[in-house]
Amino acid sequence: MEQTIHTTLAEAAGIIDGLIYGDSSIEITSIHGIADAKSGCITYLQDSKLIAQLKTSPASSVIAQTYIPDLKIPQIVTDNPSLSFIKLLNHFCVKIHTPKGIMNGATLSEGIQLGADISIYPNVYISKNVSIGDRSILYPGTFIGENSSIGKDCVIHPNVTIYDNILIGDRVIIHSGTVIGADGFGYEFIDGVHVKKPQVGGVIIGDDVEIGANAAIDRAATGNTIIGRGSKIDNLVQIAHNVKIGQHAIIIALSGIAGSSTIGDRTIIAGQAGIPDHVNIEPDTIIGPQSGVLKDLKTGRYLGTPALPFRDFIKRESILRHLPDIIKKIDDIEKKIDSVYNTIKLVKSE
Amino acid sequence: MEQTIHTTLAEAAGIIDGLIYGDSSIEITSIHGIADAKSGCITYLQDSKLIAQLKTSPASSVIAQTYIPDLKIPQIVTDNPSLSFIKLLNHFCVKIHTPKGIMNGATLSEGIQLGADISIYPNVYISKNVSIGDRSILYPGTFIGENSSIGKDCVIHPNVTIYDNILIGDRVIIHSGTVIGADGFGYEFIDGVHVKKPQVGGVIIGDDVEIGANAAIDRAATGNTIIGRGSKIDNLVQIAHNVKIGQHAIIIALSGIAGSSTIGDRTIIAGQAGIPDHVNIEPDTIIGPQSGVLKDLKTGRYLGTPALPFRDFIKRESILRHLPDIIKKIDDIEKKIDSVYNTIKLVKSE
Amino acid sequence: MEQTIHTTLAEAAGIIDGLIYGDSSIEITSIHGIADAKSGCITYLQDSKLIAQLKTSPASSVIAQTYIPDLKIPQIVTDNPSLSFIKLLNHFCVKIHTPKGIMNGATLSEGIQLGADISIYPNVYISKNVSIGDRSILYPGTFIGENSSIGKDCVIHPNVTIYDNILIGDRVIIHSGTVIGADGFGYEFIDGVHVKKPQVGGVIIGDDVEIGANAAIDRAATGNTIIGRGSKIDNLVQIAHNVKIGQHAIIIALSGIAGSSTIGDRTIIAGQAGIPDHVNIEPDTIIGPQSGVLKDLKTGRYLGTPALPFRDFIKRESILRHLPDIIKKIDDIEKKIDSVYNTIKLVKSE
Repeated sequence: MEQTIHTTLAEAAGIIDGLIYGDSSIEITSIHGIADAKSGCITYLQDSKLIAQLKTSPASSVIAQTYIPDLKIPQIVTDNPSLSFIKLLNHFCVKIHTPKGIMNGATLSEGIQLGADISIYPNVYISKNVSIGDRSILYPGTFIGENSSIGKDCVIHPNVTIYDNILIGDRVIIHSGTVIGADGFGYEFIDGVHVKKPQVGGVIIGDDVEIGANAAIDRAATGNTIIGRGSKIDNLVQIAHNVKIGQHAIIIALSGIAGSSTIGDRTIIAGQAGIPDHVNIEPDTIIGPQSGVLKDLKTGRYLGTPALPFRDFIKRESILRHLPDIIKKIDDIEKKIDSVYNTIKLVKSE
Repeated sequence: MEQTIHTTLAEAAGIIDGLIYGDSSIEITSIHGIADAKSGCITYLQDSKLIAQLKTSPASSVIAQTYIPDLKIPQIVTDNPSLSFIKLLNHFCVKIHTPKGIMNGATLSEGIQLGADISIYPNVYISKNVSIGDRSILYPGTFIGENSSIGKDCVIHPNVTIYDNILIGDRVIIHSGTVIGADGFGYEFIDGVHVKKPQVGGVIIGDDVEIGANAAIDRAATGNTIIGRGSKIDNLVQIAHNVKIGQHAIIIALSGIAGSSTIGDRTIIAGQAGIPDHVNIEPDTIIGPQSGVLKDLKTGRYLGTPALPFRDFIKRESILRHLPDIIKKIDDIEKKIDSVYNTIKLVKSE
Repeated sequence: MEQTIHTTLAEAAGIIDGLIYGDSSIEITSIHGIADAKSGCITYLQDSKLIAQLKTSPASSVIAQTYIPDLKIPQIVTDNPSLSFIKLLNHFCVKIHTPKGIMNGATLSEGIQLGADISIYPNVYISKNVSIGDRSILYPGTFIGENSSIGKDCVIHPNVTIYDNILIGDRVIIHSGTVIGADGFGYEFIDGVHVKKPQVGGVIIGDDVEIGANAAIDRAATGNTIIGRGSKIDNLVQIAHNVKIGQHAIIIALSGIAGSSTIGDRTIIAGQAGIPDHVNIEPDTIIGPQSGVLKDLKTGRYLGTPALPFRDFIKRESILRHLPDIIKKIDDIEKKIDSVYNTIKLVKSE
């Protein structure tokens, strides 16, 4: 279900400091992307390729970077329409959370340090010696293990599990079902049996990290698994023990990073990609969807299993596409050579 | 552990309106598929290819579509043995749930509308302005966010999280650990930092949808993520923001569908397949396991990464399998041409 | 965050029955793998290839299998340094759990059998007729369904869901978010609608199994899904209904095993691999990462999609890598044959 708002184009333009072209008095009743725009909504033009789509859209107004001629609906022009759109959403659609304090049905153990204006919902369990920073919210069903620490302004959604000895920075958002600090997958195969290596390290999650739903970030064997400041991790991602992810990296859904690998700053790993253990991915690398990395990667763009430099992948794929033609060509050559062969015999025998 | 039942072949035949061949008085103590049939059980013949397996099976009776000659155990003949088997399982093995009402230890906020004969277990948390339809069951650890609505006859298994503004139809089953309505993965990269785009849309789940364990279905950025009536989603599936899935679709485990893509009615997406963002998959399409779709797909059967029409995939795979032979052939041709070349030189020099 | 310990090299050597070379009186303040070794720590040499890394490491002492010459730090020599390291971790870093009994806020239904020295935390819900063995621990948010049984010395981490009729052995560890016994994915497509096949079988989990976070192990349609003794399953793994996994198998993160397949003892399935339904994988098989198995596999090592014997995969990959050269070769041959062809014409016309 969607949210309805009540404002005017003039008010919206004021919030985003934009210049109005058209009737500033029109009512705005919702905010939508172009793809799901509806009558009454304000939308934005992210890419000039979408002008045709905008022109047939039922949207009632649009934010654009430059004035769009021949458009029937009013426009607001701003430097960065995407950012303006984010501002409007934050202003009109994101509710301000009222601190709830410690609600009935939450369980708090000894030695817990609580910041100001926190919200701890029912069915939360907080173990010994945990600290929770100012204004952080722990939704129902959340578990926090011993000696773990949650920074300021964090939102921990329902049914998140944070094991012991986990250090979480400020403004971190963790979505439901995610598990931080389960034991890394480490065994020693001795006499036909997998003997568990105790996983006694921790996890450190930097400021401004967001982690999606049902992800798993394992604790280190020894030392720490680290997610750098500002990195964003999507749903159902697996981060194994002792992985170090740099700052502002992006890891998309269903990807897995095996033990002790290092992912550079701003690297983007697309969906269902796999990174093996003990490799180093340099900063600003882009790894395409479903790629299977085999080894250390220098900064660049990679795709495929095994992950190749993007150009090499495209070349290989192009050859593969033409293989039936190549097979035919080989057959033709074979026929020709046989005919030549026979001709020569004839020549020789003449 | 398995269930034991107590009935006779005659009673079973009555329930499924079938014709008995053999001793109708035998006792039936369990219901099993052929693969795990045991003495005392009734099983069914789904496919005539399995007759040999059936003949050596310890099963004590079988449901078949036509009379099977030379079979030593009694048979029940019905039009649709699979459906008859389902009827018996429902009759004998599926427990009827007794409504529990609101149990101690559940937390209900203000403004909640509850239907008749509901069951709300301990450790459930229901936020403000939620409505729950008649006979729906919310098992322990379930969280329902503000303004969300659950239809009639739904079963929400333990530790499910349903965020705010989610609309769920009737007869929906959601298995444990699944998260509906976490924020879509949307950021704007501005000045070296990923700025969060507020995800303010909703999720709409149609009637008769079933969702497996630990799946994640994200809320829309704006508008709605939609799962159409009768669609079935397996465990650990990722459905990104603004995806629209048609009716009676099947999405198998560990598959991921990226943002804003559309999946047609009755389409089947096999395990670990990946669908990129902003593509359209036509109805009645079958996408094989681990396939990586690149673009819009017309109705058909596809396989591979990149996903090819099934025949093209098989052709490519056949060529790949013969590559060593092809390499050898090329080498042979090369030798032949060199020999011809030398012969000609000889001819010319003669 | 990491743990600090306080011991001496002499005490550590005593625990692992090792021979000290160097100053036995030095203080040991932490235990770390070589990769994250720090001053004050004891580390171990798992592989002689790491000697160079050890020599530049800040570690203060090391466990090795044979005396390492030219090493400045004290050494402890033992038969199996990995096992010695595990012993030290267990001794110094793994906390002994004090039984908590049944804590306030746990909900226990009728007919429950509880062993000695158990720990049942707040927000745990135990259904009717469940049995919990001696010394087992159920952390907050855990749900146990009717008639299920948990053995002795088990650790069920927070927010785990165990459905009804599940049999779990002794010393089983289940990490957070994991779901055991959700319905298998089974429907019969009748008149345009997927009719649910009731999933009335169970799950049996052998002794000494460990299951990671957010995994899903479905209940059998009829009969049982089985995880054999000593097998280890990583995070986010999907095990479908009626799968039988042998003993001491390893299944790594994000892999999926479809319905009714059988995995032999000690088989290793690497990350993101997929096993289709109704296949048999023989014991001691190794299936590489992201592999897509198509059919039954005999004992061996396999890689790729489709999964090929390892040598065949390497051969295919080598050919694929040389395809551009092969294409060039074909073009050269073609030119040559054309030149010969023309030469012959000349010869003949001469």
